[in-house]
Amino acid sequence: MKITNHIIKLKTAATLDFIDITEKVKEKIKETGITNGVINIQSLHTTMAIIVNEAEPLLISDMKTLLEKLAPRTFKYAHDNFEIRTVNMCDGECANGHAHNKAIHLPTSALLNISSHNLQLGQWQRVFAVELDRSRPRQIALQIMGR
Amino acid sequence: MKITNHIIKLKTAATLDFIDITEKVKEKIKETGITNGVINIQSLHTTMAIIVNEAEPLLISDMKTLLEKLAPRTFKYAHDNFEIRTVNMCDGECANGHAHNKAIHLPTSALLNISSHNLQLGQWQRVFAVELDRSRPRQIALQIMGR
Amino acid sequence: MKITNHIIKLKTAATLDFIDITEKVKEKIKETGITNGVINIQSLHTTMAIIVNEAEPLLISDMKTLLEKLAPRTFKYAHDNFEIRTVNMCDGECANGHAHNKAIHLPTSALLNISSHNLQLGQWQRVFAVELDRSRPRQIALQIMGR
Repeated sequence: MKITNHIIKLKTAATLDFIDITEKVKEKIKETGITNGVINIQSLHTTMAIIVNEAEPLLISDMKTLLEKLAPRTFKYAHDNFEIRTVNMCDGECANGHAHNKAIHLPTSALLNISSHNLQLGQWQRVFAVELDRSRPRQIALQIMGR
Repeated sequence: MKITNHIIKLKTAATLDFIDITEKVKEKIKETGITNGVINIQSLHTTMAIIVNEAEPLLISDMKTLLEKLAPRTFKYAHDNFEIRTVNMCDGECANGHAHNKAIHLPTSALLNISSHNLQLGQWQRVFAVELDRSRPRQIALQIMGR
Repeated sequence: MKITNHIIKLKTAATLDFIDITEKVKEKIKETGITNGVINIQSLHTTMAIIVNEAEPLLISDMKTLLEKLAPRTFKYAHDNFEIRTVNMCDGECANGHAHNKAIHLPTSALLNISSHNLQLGQWQRVFAVELDRSRPRQIALQIMGR
C-alpha cells in the first residue's frame, strides 16, 4: 500500500477559466507506479472547484452562463460590503462573494478510481479545475493511494 | 488491504430516471468480504450523477422539478447548436446541453464508508444513479478499498 | 495501513445552521496517529450537507440567501403534501421538501487529504456541517485511512 501527495500549480487566466488537468493528473499517477487504487483531487481554495465533465468548448460556455445565473456577479453580497465586514480581510481584498456562492454548488474535490495503471474515466469524462474568482496562482493537491 | 474494482451496468428508462442502486452496491461489498474501508461509487458518464438521498417518490418528483428549473430543456444551449459545433460530434448526436448543465451541479461520485461489513448509511440515505440525458445503457464503477 | 471509524455528534440550532467542524475533525485525526492518508467526512442524513468553504459570517449569510433562492421554503413540494404521501411517514413528520432539494445540490461528504499528521487545507478552507432542515440531533461519520 502506497500513499503519495502531490501539488499541481496553476496560474488561472480569468473568472470562470476551465482548466483541463486530466493529462497532468494521469502523469502523476504514472509516476507513482500504482496499479489499483484511488486518487483524490482536491482544490486548496474556497473559490476554485474540481469538476468532471466533457471538454466541449460550447458546453463550457453554457456552464459559465448557468453558473453566472446561479450566483450572479451583480447580486449584492454582504461578503463584499467592506464597510461592515471585519473578518478575514486581506490587503487588496476584492469583491468575490459571487465566487464563493458558485463554489458551494460545485465539488471541492473529485475522488476517482485508478484501475490498470490509469485513471478510470468514461469516454467523455475530463477533469477540470474551475476558477470562480479572478486570475490567480492556484494549487491542487493530489492524494494517490493504492498498490 | 484489499482493492477491488467492479462495474454495475444499467439501462435507464428516460430523462431524470432515479435508479436506486443501494442494494446492488451492498451486494458487491459483501462479495469482497471487506469489513472496514471505503467505497467510491463513480458515474462513468458526463450526464449521469450519483446522489445520496431519500427514496420517497414525491420527493423525487420535486427534485426533478427543481433540476429542470436549474437547467431547463427549453434554454438554448450553444452545445446543442450543431450548425456551429465541431468538437465531440458523434453519429446521431442529440441535444443534451441541459443534461451536462444539470450534471455540474450534482456529484459525479459518492464516497461512502464501509463499517462492520456493510455500507454505512443513515436511516433515510439511499444511493441513486440519476439519468440526466435520455434512456441509455450506463456504467457505474465501484472501487472498494479496505480490509 | 490503519482504517478507523468515528462519529461526531451535533445538535443543530436552526434551519441553515453552518457548524464549523474543522477542529473536531483535526482532533480525531491526531488521535489516530495517522501521518498520510485520507479522511472521508460523511453526513448520515438526507437533509444535512458537508461543505468546505470560508468561515466569514457575511459570506455564510449570502450562502443562506442563495440556497433559499435555489429551493425556497415557499415552493409547494409534493413531498410535503401529507394528504397524498404514503411513503416514509414518521410520527410528527414535518414539511422539509425544501431541505432535501437544497441537499441534492450540496455534497453529502467531503474527502480530504491527510498530510504530515494533519488535515491538508488551503489558507481559507474550513469544513462545515450544514443543517438544511430544522434544529435536530445529527451525526457525522468519519472514516480515516492511512498510515
